[in-house]
Amino acid sequence: MASVAIIGASGMIGASLARTLITRGALGRERLDALILSDIRKSDIEGEATHWVTGDAADFETIDRLVASRPDVIFHVAATAMGQADSNFSIGYHINFDTVRATVEAIRLAGDDYCPRLVHASSIGVYGAPFPALIDDAVQPRPDSSYGTQKLMSEAIIADYSRMGFVDGICLRLPTIAVRPGEATHGNSGFFSNIIREPLEGRRAVLPASDDVRHWLASPETAVAQLIHAANLEGPIPAEARALVMPGVSLTVEVLLAALAERAGEDLLSLIDRTDPPVYGPQDFPACFAAETARNLGFPLLEERAVDFIDGFLRKRFPA
Amino acid sequence: MASVAIIGASGMIGASLARTLITRGALGRERLDALILSDIRKSDIEGEATHWVTGDAADFETIDRLVASRPDVIFHVAATAMGQADSNFSIGYHINFDTVRATVEAIRLAGDDYCPRLVHASSIGVYGAPFPALIDDAVQPRPDSSYGTQKLMSEAIIADYSRMGFVDGICLRLPTIAVRPGEATHGNSGFFSNIIREPLEGRRAVLPASDDVRHWLASPETAVAQLIHAANLEGPIPAEARALVMPGVSLTVEVLLAALAERAGEDLLSLIDRTDPPVYGPQDFPACFAAETARNLGFPLLEERAVDFIDGFLRKRFPA
Repeated sequence: MASVAIIGASGMIGASLARTLITRGALGRERLDALILSDIRKSDIEGEATHWVTGDAADFETIDRLVASRPDVIFHVAATAMGQADSNFSIGYHINFDTVRATVEAIRLAGDDYCPRLVHASSIGVYGAPFPALIDDAVQPRPDSSYGTQKLMSEAIIADYSRMGFVDGICLRLPTIAVRPGEATHGNSGFFSNIIREPLEGRRAVLPASDDVRHWLASPETAVAQLIHAANLEGPIPAEARALVMPGVSLTVEVLLAALAERAGEDLLSLIDRTDPPVYGPQDFPACFAAETARNLGFPLLEERAVDFIDGFLRKRFPA
Repeated sequence: MASVAIIGASGMIGASLARTLITRGALGRERLDALILSDIRKSDIEGEATHWVTGDAADFETIDRLVASRPDVIFHVAATAMGQADSNFSIGYHINFDTVRATVEAIRLAGDDYCPRLVHASSIGVYGAPFPALIDDAVQPRPDSSYGTQKLMSEAIIADYSRMGFVDGICLRLPTIAVRPGEATHGNSGFFSNIIREPLEGRRAVLPASDDVRHWLASPETAVAQLIHAANLEGPIPAEARALVMPGVSLTVEVLLAALAERAGEDLLSLIDRTDPPVYGPQDFPACFAAETARNLGFPLLEERAVDFIDGFLRKRFPA
């Protein structure tokens, strides 16, 4: 029996995680006996033994209501994306850092030796340019964005509260998610999703990067599977695993477009509008991670090749 | 002409920095035309064109009064020491992180293209065990204390506000300061000062470490000289130099005690009470840093040998 809370349950990852848990009725081997969903706004997600706590998670009153029922596992997947965190400076710190700090502080103040597993969605955005060709777990993160800074600060405070024994935290540096569902986004890595989703929906997509741009990708299903795996790791999490890069697939724009053509026809490529010159070149994105600690801990990866990203999107969008 | 503010002006480093600036009447080549001293409590430090802003620097109203006069250089040297930050958990975050965040936020909101040099006293405490024998600037800081976590978070937010062009920040990872003036302290590295100061004052000192413990030390005068050097660097500071380890001297307890005996007599060693067994062994402290970025930028170091630490203390304590 496990009780679970999701902070950011209306977001892309949070909603997908919530639906997965409700469908399975379990968190790994444990039956799910309570699910608290929290976000600024309620979504239409409902389930047995599911209830909503709406409000700003940076606001102590909101987070305290969530902590009051002492969930065994808290997923913190509330975030504003890289583009927004940099252009709306205060909002970025508020959503990406203050909500994390409020969460660990509310847990600390709960007392009763309450020490839940906290699974936080961090990001490979903690690494900034210049990027080594292969980034292993010894490479020092040096963010070049406010988003990456906020994620790094969140990792640091979660590690400290964990070291003190207040919480058992783990931060997953998730790959860039593709194919993101919903509308085309204009975040700096959003085009990796746009160039697949939009043509498959019969819409035009802007490609601001050259063909040789290589990046580290995972599907939304992989991200959810990785978060659930983190929740189920035997604890407490070792200090060197409190923040770790997740497995992903290293793919170029060229290979992604070839996979799109292979699965859905060459014609779709005509729906892609390249910026001239490209805004992004190969030096602008981290290409490949070793993710050695996460692989040793058995973190899953549901894709192998570029076509798997196309197929995964098609399965969900056009179910048989 | 330079106007300067010191946040934490009543602390060990802040007071020493303030006295140095007032005595010289200059910040490097620039004449000092205004000096704002800020702390929770005023000290007896006074000088020409010097005035106090008292209050909590994490409180926006206080920091805003300081920023209102648009100092060219702001030194942020307010901190609570490692021992206190870990035992008084909330106070540590408040003093070591919230005051830094309030400072950069007040600078950002000041507008008018105001972009001062911000020199922040960080610490080698951002590195945690296990320590490589030599820590170069590529080694990833992983704090094993709340103090180190707060310093790392402060470095991250200062780097981000600097990247955004709101401030021109630089964080000095200062060595452990010896000989600290004043009372014996019980912080985890305080004994490096206690075993010199206390015997020289005719008092007993507790030594909780084995003879072979090696650590990275600098005098208060070196720390002040390094802070002033940072204030005078041609700007803007490059991204890779926004947080950097400062030069220091790598010394063992054994060598420090031998220097004490050499300068003040073997008898003094009888005033040292060793804990049995030692609380700290060689694995508990970082022994040696390359500090290659700081050396390339010309950061000063006023000591070479263990006896220099003894002599420096004696010169101040018993002026000729």
